Amino acid sequence: MSQISPIALPHLVSMETLAIDQVIALIERGLALKRGADPVQFHQQIFVANLFFENSTRTHKSFEVAEKRLGLDVIDFHAETSSVNKGETLYDTILTMDALGVDLCVVRHPAVAFYQDLIESPSLNTAIINGGDGSGQHPSQCLLDLMTIYEEFGYFKGLKICIAGDITHSRVAKSNMQILKRLGATLYFSGPKEWYSSDFDQFGQQVDLDEIIGDLDVLMLLRVQHERHAGQGSFSKQSYHEAFGLTQERYDRLGPLAIMLHPAPVNRDVEIADHLVESPKSRIVTQMTNGVYVRMAILEAILQARYN
Amino acid sequence: MSQISPIALPHLVSMETLAIDQVIALIERGLALKRGADPVQFHQQIFVANLFFENSTRTHKSFEVAEKRLGLDVIDFHAETSSVNKGETLYDTILTMDALGVDLCVVRHPAVAFYQDLIESPSLNTAIINGGDGSGQHPSQCLLDLMTIYEEFGYFKGLKICIAGDITHSRVAKSNMQILKRLGATLYFSGPKEWYSSDFDQFGQQVDLDEIIGDLDVLMLLRVQHERHAGQGSFSKQSYHEAFGLTQERYDRLGPLAIMLHPAPVNRDVEIADHLVESPKSRIVTQMTNGVYVRMAILEAILQARYN
Amino acid sequence: MSQISPIALPHLVSMETLAIDQVIALIERGLALKRGADPVQFHQQIFVANLFFENSTRTHKSFEVAEKRLGLDVIDFHAETSSVNKGETLYDTILTMDALGVDLCVVRHPAVAFYQDLIESPSLNTAIINGGDGSGQHPSQCLLDLMTIYEEFGYFKGLKICIAGDITHSRVAKSNMQILKRLGATLYFSGPKEWYSSDFDQFGQQVDLDEIIGDLDVLMLLRVQHERHAGQGSFSKQSYHEAFGLTQERYDRLGPLAIMLHPAPVNRDVEIADHLVESPKSRIVTQMTNGVYVRMAILEAILQARYN
Repeated sequence: MSQISPIALPHLVSMETLAIDQVIALIERGLALKRGADPVQFHQQIFVANLFFENSTRTHKSFEVAEKRLGLDVIDFHAETSSVNKGETLYDTILTMDALGVDLCVVRHPAVAFYQDLIESPSLNTAIINGGDGSGQHPSQCLLDLMTIYEEFGYFKGLKICIAGDITHSRVAKSNMQILKRLGATLYFSGPKEWYSSDFDQFGQQVDLDEIIGDLDVLMLLRVQHERHAGQGSFSKQSYHEAFGLTQERYDRLGPLAIMLHPAPVNRDVEIADHLVESPKSRIVTQMTNGVYVRMAILEAILQARYN
Repeated sequence: MSQISPIALPHLVSMETLAIDQVIALIERGLALKRGADPVQFHQQIFVANLFFENSTRTHKSFEVAEKRLGLDVIDFHAETSSVNKGETLYDTILTMDALGVDLCVVRHPAVAFYQDLIESPSLNTAIINGGDGSGQHPSQCLLDLMTIYEEFGYFKGLKICIAGDITHSRVAKSNMQILKRLGATLYFSGPKEWYSSDFDQFGQQVDLDEIIGDLDVLMLLRVQHERHAGQGSFSKQSYHEAFGLTQERYDRLGPLAIMLHPAPVNRDVEIADHLVESPKSRIVTQMTNGVYVRMAILEAILQARYN
Repeated sequence: MSQISPIALPHLVSMETLAIDQVIALIERGLALKRGADPVQFHQQIFVANLFFENSTRTHKSFEVAEKRLGLDVIDFHAETSSVNKGETLYDTILTMDALGVDLCVVRHPAVAFYQDLIESPSLNTAIINGGDGSGQHPSQCLLDLMTIYEEFGYFKGLKICIAGDITHSRVAKSNMQILKRLGATLYFSGPKEWYSSDFDQFGQQVDLDEIIGDLDVLMLLRVQHERHAGQGSFSKQSYHEAFGLTQERYDRLGPLAIMLHPAPVNRDVEIADHLVESPKSRIVTQMTNGVYVRMAILEAILQARYN
């Protein structure tokens, strides 16, 4: 390789397994790439497969752009036209990719911790990136959120950050609360009581958003995950918006230097008033742009662990 | 760029917004590429996304071949496995592509004039090519039809051209009748009365195909759009074929220098007798081949507007 | 081309049309590529389209990796979002690919011998590789099986090979029995009587697996094709496994130098006990790896017939 990535990772499956200096190194590498640093050049042909067993626009296409910016050969997998329909297990699909010479698999799958068997298997040589495991983790989304906060403030320690909304169903929230606490931020949680669990008490404090919004540095709104609710949650869109969403009134109470994040896709006029999605305090578009750069940093770190 | 495209376009969404000299320049550039001219070389990495929200073989794959011939990086989007299933709007999908660094989006979508909001948005930087908007326009298909006529005759003025069949449901017909009239052709329309609208009177004359077929230079047959008919149209395949389709008898009455076009896929033995699809007066295969070259010309013109 | 492929093929649709020395040449070329020989370099841009009208992981992705290793431009076709939904025939889809400039189409389709019309058409210029025709043939799978046997033993003559399981529904079995007999192997068949046909008597002998297993060099297990059985076959998974599957007991009776093949995906605990899929006598992973190399050899041979 022409350049040395600052870190080397065998896989990326969870934020919990990353050391703080690895997190900062990935973010800083993402920022350097955004500012125009040359990506690492690999001199062999490298194959990466994107295996998305759940719907995705942003994560899937963001990885694909990142992969192609690094000059990797991308194999796209479509579960709905694959042998998964003949009963092929996830392990057997990944074993196939490995046997075909695929170096790295980016996988989104509904089973929580689907990756554990894969990374522990003595047979499998391919690297695994978790692109979202059910209601588990979503580390690349977490890293792009962190990169967006760090790009804005330059530090995490003491930042007042509120995670608001459908916390129990959000793999983004779970990845974020653990690492933000480790990074020294002060965390608050708000939203419907039905979507809060006392498991979160160890990371921060449950609050009424309206009482704290003026003090926040970062408001992290979560998507209402209609597709993960099995009949629960009896909010109309409008009542959710009024009670917990970002209305113009709440937006005005955010401080002038505060920023608002959302993993998208936004349910417009539910989590956020339609006209505020691209407002000055919103970093939603920046998050999507940063996602490409931090995923390039992740890919570099994994390929470095394999080829250096 | 190593070479200069003759024209520069910010987007291509409708034939109505093209000047006549732009139309001729695109056709002539398509013909030059077909004769072996070198495509424009771009020195940066350029991403193009193909977003087809309706079924397509020809248009989708023709753009893909054209893109790869120009050395572009192609991002393929599959609506059915994307966040569109989570309620993501078209605007939000395109905003995502834009944020990921996609330079150009080719979009087919069932909503008529879907592109208007996109090209007027101050947030979006990506170029838009309309690959078909519901029953609206289909400019790249129109340009390949024009290229095929121009390649044959070298001019448009005074050519006698009949558009025949399911005119009201055809976006191809609407794109074609406006531009062919502007180019000086004499237009005729034939087919079932139910599929004709007096809106078309300004462009040409409604006729009985059998009375005029011997005088035509170009017979443009349209596909019967079974998928756009909601219970209307009570033709059997055979009765449509006999009344309005290209039978051997009608084929024989076409002049020796006349040509026949069809946007395909052909409903064999409905619009055209099966054995006439690849007959000497048919230019259906030529149309598909020309589609790649004229789309290369379109892509060059748009990328030139961005990078020159 | 920088190097000469040992053979040139216009198409690859069936094992029956290959001469024995062509089979050996393809296998030896596959082995050479596996040992690190440089692939043939093509100096023009070459387009290959993968058209899979039936589910596939292995064959589809193996061809894709092979194509990209040869530097070809890959056009991926998705029948479910194509004009096939508008009634487009297979011939018209391939005619379109041909008109777009696609040099080679890899096609899997449920119609037996779908390829016959395509290779006989005077209109079509594109090469055809059969990636599986219904219950017909599957020549690239056959060649990877042969390559795996040849890599192990170095010859075919006199090898004792048993094909076991769902023989009537298996296109792999039919490709294999013909060519293995021609190559001089001694063939046995075992499995449920309902899935055997007297048509196979000309190639080998129907036996009880338990009587012969200790004498075999190669045990070729077949997948129980649940998706091709229309209500037939009344085996429970467990009863099939006990009567005909590879249990630990049968595995132990295989000779120390014998190998076991399966085209995959394996129905674990049906054809093979779960824990034996990657056991020392299994070559299932090797088969998948060899598939990439033998498909590179096939692609080289076809492209050489076109460009040399």
